Amino acid sequence: MSSSTPLLHPAVRPAAVTDCERIHQLIVDLAEYERSAHEVKVTPEQLRAALFGPQPAAFALVAEDAVGAVAGFALYFVNFSTWEGVHGIYLEDLYVAPEQRGSGLGKALLQSLASIAVSRGYARFEWSVLDWNQPSIDFYTAIGAVPMDGWTVYRLTGDALRRTAAALG
Amino acid sequence: MSSSTPLLHPAVRPAAVTDCERIHQLIVDLAEYERSAHEVKVTPEQLRAALFGPQPAAFALVAEDAVGAVAGFALYFVNFSTWEGVHGIYLEDLYVAPEQRGSGLGKALLQSLASIAVSRGYARFEWSVLDWNQPSIDFYTAIGAVPMDGWTVYRLTGDALRRTAAALG
Repeated sequence: MSSSTPLLHPAVRPAAVTDCERIHQLIVDLAEYERSAHEVKVTPEQLRAALFGPQPAAFALVAEDAVGAVAGFALYFVNFSTWEGVHGIYLEDLYVAPEQRGSGLGKALLQSLASIAVSRGYARFEWSVLDWNQPSIDFYTAIGAVPMDGWTVYRLTGDALRRTAAALG
Repeated sequence: MSSSTPLLHPAVRPAAVTDCERIHQLIVDLAEYERSAHEVKVTPEQLRAALFGPQPAAFALVAEDAVGAVAGFALYFVNFSTWEGVHGIYLEDLYVAPEQRGSGLGKALLQSLASIAVSRGYARFEWSVLDWNQPSIDFYTAIGAVPMDGWTVYRLTGDALRRTAAALG
């Protein structure tokens, strides 16, 4: 594998700006699967700005079905390990439309992201999983992913975030 | 608060390239506190490249003690919420030297990051905590941070990462 050219799965390509409407629909579908559709506020315009603005900090791959329609996506950003001293990939969302489950597109997206990480010399490829999502956990464990047991993410949002900022100085 | 100029705590400033040696030492100290010093591979040169190379994807603030010496740091990167449609701050590491504990520098760093997030219109400010670190958990809960219970981070590294990439196509 070249160190400069990530090798993507044949069904996978980097998202284009014209994919944003479809990616938006898939994000809504994923939220419904995670029982949280009411929490989705993103618009297709926000996706276009984040993925295709100047110096983007978020990136997406799409997976196509047999007739070339976008049936899945992976949205990721770059993190950094202070212990390893190098960057990594954090997969924020991965989703494949229900009618394409079992077609290997989810695996193709994961493998393509692993390939990007390896080609760039990154140390890690990470993502979060809902603890009740056993089919996904089984798949992730099978490819050698390790759960970060003993760590919990804490999140500041909304009023608590504004209060913390306003308490400054 | 201006929407373009984040307001930092008076003891806090963006890291300069000349701070990298000191930040490196604090990273090693933090790993010892987390009982994991043997896992630290980062060099000061890697920090300089990540924080001060072209188009950096990792960023740092430092906190100074009463005589202007760097006594703490926060290293962060930018993430993205597909549901909110906007970016957020992920705090990878925050550490204050033991002799400066109780001086408010940790809080000053957290507040400064919250201020950066608010000033940019970000939706979230997040970080991970070791479950045995109750003093930190108490502090985070007190400022309104919420644990992402029910989610677990999975990580691919090393041979498992390379195998996944190599299985492509």
